[in-house]
Amino acid sequence: MRSPIVTVTIQKASGASGEERTAAQDYIAVEEPLQIRLAKRDLAITMRTPGHDRELAAGFLFTEGILSSPSQVASIDADERGTITVRPKAGVDAGAESRHFYVTSSCGVCGKASIEALHAAGCNSLAGILPHIRANVILSLPEKLRSAQQVFEHTGGLHAAGLFRADGELLELREDVGRHNAVDKLIGAAFLAGQLPLHNCILMLSGRVSFELVQKAVMAGIPAVAAVGAPSSLATETARRFGVTLIGFLRDRRFNIYSGEVRLAS
Amino acid sequence: MRSPIVTVTIQKASGASGEERTAAQDYIAVEEPLQIRLAKRDLAITMRTPGHDRELAAGFLFTEGILSSPSQVASIDADERGTITVRPKAGVDAGAESRHFYVTSSCGVCGKASIEALHAAGCNSLAGILPHIRANVILSLPEKLRSAQQVFEHTGGLHAAGLFRADGELLELREDVGRHNAVDKLIGAAFLAGQLPLHNCILMLSGRVSFELVQKAVMAGIPAVAAVGAPSSLATETARRFGVTLIGFLRDRRFNIYSGEVRLAS
Repeated sequence: MRSPIVTVTIQKASGASGEERTAAQDYIAVEEPLQIRLAKRDLAITMRTPGHDRELAAGFLFTEGILSSPSQVASIDADERGTITVRPKAGVDAGAESRHFYVTSSCGVCGKASIEALHAAGCNSLAGILPHIRANVILSLPEKLRSAQQVFEHTGGLHAAGLFRADGELLELREDVGRHNAVDKLIGAAFLAGQLPLHNCILMLSGRVSFELVQKAVMAGIPAVAAVGAPSSLATETARRFGVTLIGFLRDRRFNIYSGEVRLAS
Repeated sequence: MRSPIVTVTIQKASGASGEERTAAQDYIAVEEPLQIRLAKRDLAITMRTPGHDRELAAGFLFTEGILSSPSQVASIDADERGTITVRPKAGVDAGAESRHFYVTSSCGVCGKASIEALHAAGCNSLAGILPHIRANVILSLPEKLRSAQQVFEHTGGLHAAGLFRADGELLELREDVGRHNAVDKLIGAAFLAGQLPLHNCILMLSGRVSFELVQKAVMAGIPAVAAVGAPSSLATETARRFGVTLIGFLRDRRFNIYSGEVRLAS
């Protein structure tokens, strides 16, 4: 696997007027384009940190509603030029979908349409799944994520996503310059291993929570998402609609519950 | 203009085991899809914070290399369903371009191709433009950006991009759930006002710096980019190639210079 970080020579500026300069070696996160191809069709280009590209492609195709089962996949191959090709098995009609499935919604592209499209993709509410999560487990997640994040210590430039069991055990961690890529890598690995839906899991994010990240959790059947940063309006609305527990500002042993507080009842 | 923030009722959890709960009103950033249409063709959907949608659409079309002058634009109209339509003037052939212009590069989608595509789009090196920037000006930017960021104070959920004159005066500030949108809004406003290239400007970002953000700066002729967070490898490489001064980790009256230190020579 290629390294997710590279070394560059920089100048550090300090002093009252920024006048002091010292040359230094700095670690920065690698960002490179990956072209995702399904059979012979170019579906998308994502700027990602190299590593776990097969899982990234699989996770992207699953969370976009284009693939539904690992049994549809014949092969996944990467070339040296940054293209990864997913070949479906004979008879699988997976190439006709749109880049973003919610584009095709009939009522335009309002937030409501984005949520309806998740229903149309076959997602059901996760309310009732994983009835109880201990608040102590939630409080323990940031430190566990951080101590597993060796790359982050070097660069400060990578988003992290961790998949935790409901009892707080870390199952997998992925890092990427793109937070959606880190989540696709996690979900793609579980998809390829036949482990979906992830009903007994919590998804922990190092940054903020956009609609896209909650959408991916819903697709993978993950009933709880916790994040160090803030959620957006559409992320919150989607979590409420699909019975997902959504936690934000999880830091300094406090957190905010934006949705699904029933799982955290004491 | 619609509000970029909404109020939601949440529960705050604190105490040794997260057992203390208080209901509270919280402000969260609005995230909604915007469909960008050029003439009759749907070009892209972006998840954005409502506000300055005309500038966002114009900035997106310009920084993607699809429009090159405000004189090509006949009208820009928004509807209530989240679609914004840019109509080119008669005779302007602007609709045939690809979503991401670097997709069409002949050498695949490696990082090198992404940079070459910027050359192919007509971008020249900015070395020599704006020969000197005072380090004191750089040091002053974070505080100026923060004090102008009233929305940020409420939600913690919005990325900010500020356009500063080289002498440190703030020209414009935009905020968005997507950092690329905040930059498109800034550049789109200047594009529509006929103010490009922005040779006497510094772009200041509240977060990290990806390739896409440096690409947009190069397209707009901005010779310096400063950020609170870390740059990626491809952002650094692109800045070096196009003679852009790239500054990261600008905080606590220190910064790192990743590219173009000649402008900051004392």
